Amino acid sequence: MFSQALEAFKNVRTAAPLVHNITNFVTVNDVANAILAVGGSPIMTDDAAEVPEIVSLAAAVNINIGTLNEFSIAAMRAAGARAVELHRPLNLDPVGTGASQLRTDTAVKLLQELHPTVVRGNASEIKALWAGTGQTQGVDVNAADAVSEQNLHQSADFAKAFAARHHCVVAMTGALDLVADAKRCIVIRNGRPEMSRITGTGCQLSGVMGAFLGANPDAPFDAAAAAVASMGVAGEIAWENMAPTDGNATYRNRIIDALYHLDAHTLEERARYELV
Amino acid sequence: MFSQALEAFKNVRTAAPLVHNITNFVTVNDVANAILAVGGSPIMTDDAAEVPEIVSLAAAVNINIGTLNEFSIAAMRAAGARAVELHRPLNLDPVGTGASQLRTDTAVKLLQELHPTVVRGNASEIKALWAGTGQTQGVDVNAADAVSEQNLHQSADFAKAFAARHHCVVAMTGALDLVADAKRCIVIRNGRPEMSRITGTGCQLSGVMGAFLGANPDAPFDAAAAAVASMGVAGEIAWENMAPTDGNATYRNRIIDALYHLDAHTLEERARYELV
Amino acid sequence: MFSQALEAFKNVRTAAPLVHNITNFVTVNDVANAILAVGGSPIMTDDAAEVPEIVSLAAAVNINIGTLNEFSIAAMRAAGARAVELHRPLNLDPVGTGASQLRTDTAVKLLQELHPTVVRGNASEIKALWAGTGQTQGVDVNAADAVSEQNLHQSADFAKAFAARHHCVVAMTGALDLVADAKRCIVIRNGRPEMSRITGTGCQLSGVMGAFLGANPDAPFDAAAAAVASMGVAGEIAWENMAPTDGNATYRNRIIDALYHLDAHTLEERARYELV
Repeated sequence: MFSQALEAFKNVRTAAPLVHNITNFVTVNDVANAILAVGGSPIMTDDAAEVPEIVSLAAAVNINIGTLNEFSIAAMRAAGARAVELHRPLNLDPVGTGASQLRTDTAVKLLQELHPTVVRGNASEIKALWAGTGQTQGVDVNAADAVSEQNLHQSADFAKAFAARHHCVVAMTGALDLVADAKRCIVIRNGRPEMSRITGTGCQLSGVMGAFLGANPDAPFDAAAAAVASMGVAGEIAWENMAPTDGNATYRNRIIDALYHLDAHTLEERARYELV
Repeated sequence: MFSQALEAFKNVRTAAPLVHNITNFVTVNDVANAILAVGGSPIMTDDAAEVPEIVSLAAAVNINIGTLNEFSIAAMRAAGARAVELHRPLNLDPVGTGASQLRTDTAVKLLQELHPTVVRGNASEIKALWAGTGQTQGVDVNAADAVSEQNLHQSADFAKAFAARHHCVVAMTGALDLVADAKRCIVIRNGRPEMSRITGTGCQLSGVMGAFLGANPDAPFDAAAAAVASMGVAGEIAWENMAPTDGNATYRNRIIDALYHLDAHTLEERARYELV
Repeated sequence: MFSQALEAFKNVRTAAPLVHNITNFVTVNDVANAILAVGGSPIMTDDAAEVPEIVSLAAAVNINIGTLNEFSIAAMRAAGARAVELHRPLNLDPVGTGASQLRTDTAVKLLQELHPTVVRGNASEIKALWAGTGQTQGVDVNAADAVSEQNLHQSADFAKAFAARHHCVVAMTGALDLVADAKRCIVIRNGRPEMSRITGTGCQLSGVMGAFLGANPDAPFDAAAAAVASMGVAGEIAWENMAPTDGNATYRNRIIDALYHLDAHTLEERARYELV
């Protein structure tokens, strides 16, 4: 199965897909550079007046609700409608679902309307999205929701149920990353805990996900697995490249740098995944 | 007195406070990473529809008017009202007060309505806020307003008067940093002049201030002193870590990295402060 | 001719011009740090209510339509009107012109209304602006539009015609950079292809252009040539400073760092330019 993920990885470098992002203003620059690092081309715009045209140029769409407001929500809906119409793959990142009524309601509505190809979030966000309600601790995962070795099979069953109900692939990422469709779930054990000390590694992964989907529109499970593994492996390589005085700001740069240099051989050697 | 500031510093690492920021889109990413560097957790949202809920999750609120508009001003007021109601500490950063009528009017109104725990700005901004008018040179301090060894006592008296009038702690930062409440003022002589060649070191300090206030809601003076000293010491350490070809972009990263590695022992050794 | 560009370069360091930017939220932080790197002072605000006052404080204005919307467009028009009134030099960066009707219409209108001193864009954007229509591939240049050694004279003629029609200097940048007014055109052969793997090197150049114009209001051609050459030389120096594991995120920082350290002597030695 991972050989298909490796093909998905290679396709991004050759296809150089244009990814249209409606994403938050906190991490938008890092998202753009992460997409460029893997070989994609980012475009960011969130004005509903031009979004349909931009979607039509793009190979994939990435919607991230991190700093949503009435204007960007309108743009997200317009982008989604056009993506559905043109059969463009779409990644939904439901940042902070459960932290406010507006977020939960918006994420639930977008999940219904946009028919996302992939939903990528942390376990608290995915669970709040499943329940249509919830209480997340800001934008970070609640300890009680996190996927662990102890609850791995139960978490995998949940991920598969989510994917089945919403006809999507789900990437539930954290210390352990799960990628599931309705029938199968893999766990990916790459990455570093220090990645959570950087703002927006999840947002970056969602941008990268857009590039992988754009290059692999007919293989969303493989694309998602490859994107998640790439980000985790990049996090590990970047950590190995850290100098003693480097901290989270430099780690941020080194992760994007590692994505830039990542090749299929290294990904294959370092990816740690298995069917759950 | 500085032993209490050291306690305030340690509390941030253990409490890991969630800080809700309504801040400008220029430096927002650095603000988030600086908060993470000191051990806090940032959340950024400026939609008035969800701000009250987000404030209720947060340990502290940081309001920065750097790129204000009618929507973000409404969100700032909503955040402040909720923070007052829930007794959450709040930092106000009146960026560019005096540079336009909109900024001055907004900052004056927010100062009255939000009852900030701390006001952090440069000397020109604080003076414009005091006068309710003024002429700042963009977002940087005017030479005539800057705190110097020559006007130190006069500046300290002004800072104490400001703190007394507005029932807050004031952090008036620049080449020399003053932290004052109604009764006392300290000068902190840390930092590097090159920090002004980076956009947003003041914004970062305001985010860090939010984390220190969130972890020390009952000791705002000590929290403010510790936050200001931490930023200055980080600026010095980062400068020592600069390679010959490094410039302001890398210096930005190295300062956040230095905050990430800063410990109470180093802060104690390097902080240069005294009562004025 | 390049001796005048060198004078223009030196003037930025001594004048420290305040540059008012209305720019996109993707690359705004890098734009601010690039302006600081060359010795300017950036201010970013896009609220129409304060824009006229901010323009009056500034030495130059930089308008970038990268993430335009109805609010920022109103602010751009207000800024332009005030800049015209006060004879402040203005740089227009028509990001993505041709990618949507909104972008093309807005860029065409701004070109007519703002009387920009300099228009800086890639060849696809400038051509779409000339035609009042077009089809760009997102925000990157189309291969068919790119300036090459083969079409150099034809491209130079086009650039001069554009400059003549719109009474401006045009900086059409890419693998080869052209700077033209109605009567002359130079080609600048600095820079690295890897600069296109970073988001916003064009936006950064536009910010830097603002600083160069602010310090040289009566010599826009020389200012533009110096700004373009500075960015290209910085890109080369930064590339030489890359460590093996560095990628596009670190390259971004190293370019700004190289701008920070650039001096007139190095610029003179490394700039590769000629009249076409």
